[in-house]
Amino acid sequence: MNYRVGIVGATGAVGQELIGLLVARAFPFAELRLMASARSAGKVIEAAGRKFTVQEARPEAFAGLNLAFFAAEGAIAKALAPEAVQRGCAVFDKSSAFRMAADVPLVIPEINLDAVRGHRGIIASPNCSTAVALMGLWPLHRLFGVKRAFFATYQSVSGTGADAVEELEAQTRAHVQGGALPRSVYPYQIFQNLIPQVDSFGADGYTGEETKMREESRKIMGLPALKVSATCVRVPVVRAHSVAVNAEFERPVDVAAARAAIAAFPGAELVDDPANKVYPTPLAFSRREACGVGRLRVDTALDNGLSFWVSGDNLWKGAALNSIQIAEAMIRTGIPLKPSA
Amino acid sequence: MNYRVGIVGATGAVGQELIGLLVARAFPFAELRLMASARSAGKVIEAAGRKFTVQEARPEAFAGLNLAFFAAEGAIAKALAPEAVQRGCAVFDKSSAFRMAADVPLVIPEINLDAVRGHRGIIASPNCSTAVALMGLWPLHRLFGVKRAFFATYQSVSGTGADAVEELEAQTRAHVQGGALPRSVYPYQIFQNLIPQVDSFGADGYTGEETKMREESRKIMGLPALKVSATCVRVPVVRAHSVAVNAEFERPVDVAAARAAIAAFPGAELVDDPANKVYPTPLAFSRREACGVGRLRVDTALDNGLSFWVSGDNLWKGAALNSIQIAEAMIRTGIPLKPSA
Repeated sequence: MNYRVGIVGATGAVGQELIGLLVARAFPFAELRLMASARSAGKVIEAAGRKFTVQEARPEAFAGLNLAFFAAEGAIAKALAPEAVQRGCAVFDKSSAFRMAADVPLVIPEINLDAVRGHRGIIASPNCSTAVALMGLWPLHRLFGVKRAFFATYQSVSGTGADAVEELEAQTRAHVQGGALPRSVYPYQIFQNLIPQVDSFGADGYTGEETKMREESRKIMGLPALKVSATCVRVPVVRAHSVAVNAEFERPVDVAAARAAIAAFPGAELVDDPANKVYPTPLAFSRREACGVGRLRVDTALDNGLSFWVSGDNLWKGAALNSIQIAEAMIRTGIPLKPSA
Repeated sequence: MNYRVGIVGATGAVGQELIGLLVARAFPFAELRLMASARSAGKVIEAAGRKFTVQEARPEAFAGLNLAFFAAEGAIAKALAPEAVQRGCAVFDKSSAFRMAADVPLVIPEINLDAVRGHRGIIASPNCSTAVALMGLWPLHRLFGVKRAFFATYQSVSGTGADAVEELEAQTRAHVQGGALPRSVYPYQIFQNLIPQVDSFGADGYTGEETKMREESRKIMGLPALKVSATCVRVPVVRAHSVAVNAEFERPVDVAAARAAIAAFPGAELVDDPANKVYPTPLAFSRREACGVGRLRVDTALDNGLSFWVSGDNLWKGAALNSIQIAEAMIRTGIPLKPSA
């Protein structure tokens, strides 16, 4: 069977990755309907030697689609996802709009694909940092039972969007060529600097991103009492997020067993040979399906603890790829795309 | 009284900062004797309108000096510091050679100046990341009693040395101007990348830098049982290290009291107004005496826990400035520079 597939936010950073991945992975689409804001309507996008004309994302545009990947901001997802579902179109949403809704599955297919059974039409993908961190944490949890986790992130500017990538590049050029460093996206220079703020601040002093890492980790792993503390930091890296993790477990840990579990886990790649300076870096894990996990060691501050480091592509596993993988897994395992009544 | 002062490693990154700071702070020197490797001997360095000729660092060169700041690697410190002390010259060493020796005080003057009393001639300054992290942790410890700390560092390339700064700049230029990115200092590209390795790896999977953060924190704060786990990461920032800290305390914590303690602590500057995007960044805390502390919040994964973020100049508080501050404090409080027998 071939599927009629929509992409909402097709002209954005994640949208572009969605098109490329759907084509590269030979996703079985009979139609690929690209949607974006009215401003982008009529734009022609080429992919795999074919031309696709962008149309305005509006309720009627979902008529006849089997599924749509949403790569738009939360407000657009909130407005249009129910319209798509009402027209029989399953929505794979990468925004945060529906992730914590009780009737919306929040899914990393390697972890909790079963959560999509009986879905009501909207299936959410996690926050990019959460997805990357859990590709290391989940296989260790299955072995040892995680109780508590500390995340410190090193997040690339592509997580903010194409304009932030351009801002970093423009600041880089200005540094080399002379002149003032332009700045409009971030509140501070990001070139050769760090910004310890991703998303806006809540009353508890945590940013939205930090709170998402806590809440989404709990929901995806099915551990509502998991203790999580995150610090999220933007770094002058273009692509791929990295996370330093300290995790405490119920049972005694073993580094060799931990490494074997990472190596055996689909979607993670064990990159861990410190003696030979082998560990993941964001550059090495850009445009890679797997997230790299390394620096595995017994944590010196926790009983039954492990420390590790994960690098993974925020636009792929952290966004576009994860959504596509959910749809592929549903098709492969015969889970209906059509919403349950 | 005026002092005859030596600088060992005067041509290196920290050595240059030492000269600049001694002049800028009007350190009471009657003589400033610059020393470096034989290769640099004869080189003339200008500072504050005066010319200083570099001489070879060798035992005889310490004759007549009251104190010397060592900004050289550990092997040179090991060879020459005892020679200096034997000649009546107090040594303020920034290398790791003597830090953990039982008879060598390891000092951050705002924390444990008293440790220098009865010194035997060598007084060590801590590792750069440790110094920066403790400028936030110590005032909180005094209030609440620290039990456990997790450090994730974001370390600038100047911590590696002037050649690493040039490598980042050369890679930046090559990125803008085209051509292959040159690389000789780091095992991987550092421009727009991260390297989760600072120093070499130990058998336990921790790097030397990570182990130093644990051992030096314990020694400086006088807490031999303190639990510490560190992950140290090199980031494409030129100057100033940053540390994300999760700390667990003996007693219940209070964010308002924590903020007041930071604000009152000499050497720390409270930079913590999230609603207005006010928090420390390495760019803002380059060439600043104080380390910036912000993002203070109740830790969501620890009982009696606080999370916070510190940025501080690794070449200043993390190296040159701290050594000078120890000497200044000894002079000010009348602690003899002359070694105890």
